[in-house]
Amino acid sequence: MVDRQKEEYREYHSPHSGIFLKKDRILFREQSQYQEIEIFENGFFGRVLTLDGLVMTTERDEFIYHEMLVHPAMVSHPAPERILIVGGGDGGTAREVLKYPVKEVHLVEIDGMVIEASRRYLPTISSALDDERLRIHVEDATIWIEDHRDEFDVVIVDSTDPIGPAEGLIGEAFFENVFRALRKDGIMVIQSESPHYHLDTIRTIAKRLFRIFPVLHMYTAPIPTYPGGYWAFSMVTKGLRIEERQEIPGGLKYFNRSIYRGAFALPQFLKEKVKGMVQEPF
Amino acid sequence: MVDRQKEEYREYHSPHSGIFLKKDRILFREQSQYQEIEIFENGFFGRVLTLDGLVMTTERDEFIYHEMLVHPAMVSHPAPERILIVGGGDGGTAREVLKYPVKEVHLVEIDGMVIEASRRYLPTISSALDDERLRIHVEDATIWIEDHRDEFDVVIVDSTDPIGPAEGLIGEAFFENVFRALRKDGIMVIQSESPHYHLDTIRTIAKRLFRIFPVLHMYTAPIPTYPGGYWAFSMVTKGLRIEERQEIPGGLKYFNRSIYRGAFALPQFLKEKVKGMVQEPF
Repeated sequence: MVDRQKEEYREYHSPHSGIFLKKDRILFREQSQYQEIEIFENGFFGRVLTLDGLVMTTERDEFIYHEMLVHPAMVSHPAPERILIVGGGDGGTAREVLKYPVKEVHLVEIDGMVIEASRRYLPTISSALDDERLRIHVEDATIWIEDHRDEFDVVIVDSTDPIGPAEGLIGEAFFENVFRALRKDGIMVIQSESPHYHLDTIRTIAKRLFRIFPVLHMYTAPIPTYPGGYWAFSMVTKGLRIEERQEIPGGLKYFNRSIYRGAFALPQFLKEKVKGMVQEPF
Repeated sequence: MVDRQKEEYREYHSPHSGIFLKKDRILFREQSQYQEIEIFENGFFGRVLTLDGLVMTTERDEFIYHEMLVHPAMVSHPAPERILIVGGGDGGTAREVLKYPVKEVHLVEIDGMVIEASRRYLPTISSALDDERLRIHVEDATIWIEDHRDEFDVVIVDSTDPIGPAEGLIGEAFFENVFRALRKDGIMVIQSESPHYHLDTIRTIAKRLFRIFPVLHMYTAPIPTYPGGYWAFSMVTKGLRIEERQEIPGGLKYFNRSIYRGAFALPQFLKEKVKGMVQEPF
């Protein structure tokens, strides 16, 4: 999927379409145990992290993804103290979580090289990785979570696309383990791919979550470097009703009170695809 | 801006980034009096219409743009009977407007060749161009509108980017003429570019509208083939409060009641850019 030319990065979103980004400079390129990790400079998006030739995050637009992955769940929980982040080795999700008065955040990332490359080359994204409330585990989260019961208030699945190393993170066995790892008022949120390009994957994720969790919501956000520039997120609870319970941190660039309510409004084509499973909370 | 190779269409959204679409077949390519018009086939997006090398519409995603340009204004008006469409030569906007029991729709398109090419090669988009309630004027709307006073319930500006032939359509003189052409409960809506790529243009449009109209709202929609996959729309009234007044037509694929309310929620970075001018209606 990755163009080997130094000059240009191409990502196919279908066999017929995609995006290109000029590579001004390659800062890092290594094959880890799990995937090819690359960080390059682009004149518009700043530094760009790709895994196996797919954009994971860029300095310019990462705030949208990370704020929208974290804040809807965090503001909805009555007392978010113990948080689990699955994946998220670049540190952006942890940075947003740590804006709340949490007690303990566990980050379980399978690929230690992602963490190290992000620490070195993406300082604005990885800035909170040394926070003393954060514990980093370089392990497979699908196994790590089996030993954790009734422990977390919020679980955030910040994974790559569900092919390759992240496939197990949309499996029913994993979702069952998350259910058990969550406390009574617990919330899980998981990035759920593009409504423009991956509608069937969104439906698969929804079906699996709906079998296990009594409450399933979905919301979306516009992220320019992801396929179609449009991304879905699934949020589940054990019965907790979603409402604003925490103060929204200052200084955010995407999320606010209006977005919190508005983001759960689903386009008709998506609503019909997840009909009978996804509820709109507002 | 357009790649002359037959095989691939490239659109730069900044000097450093953009999208590519494979061209399976070129159906139409002509230089009109105003612009280069091309229609080609793409394996994912279907038929694609470009003007001067910028995607205007595609068969796959046009429903999002056209529904979101038309329905928020139409459902908000107490009795939308006389409608003006500025631009919109492909017919998609007219198709959506004609789903309401309107009396008269005027479509003022400067480039007759866009209409003819769309009639021939984009039948699902141009399908309503022969409706007997529609009158087509191949004229410059900035001049045409000068002779129309207190005549329209809804004015919809479905223009190309505000460079070249469409520049006058974001000018203050044009907005003043639209104000005069609208009846008392009148609503104008205008496509307003990408929050990811054109934030300064959005602010310019907002400033000009705000000088003339007492009520200015803004909303957004995710459109994969437009820069950043994310688009803004500005909506103004002479004082009319926005609320749902018309039944939403059946069979829509993007717009619905939740979207109507949720789409006006603006991301913080956009909200701050238009602060003091744009009100959230809900």
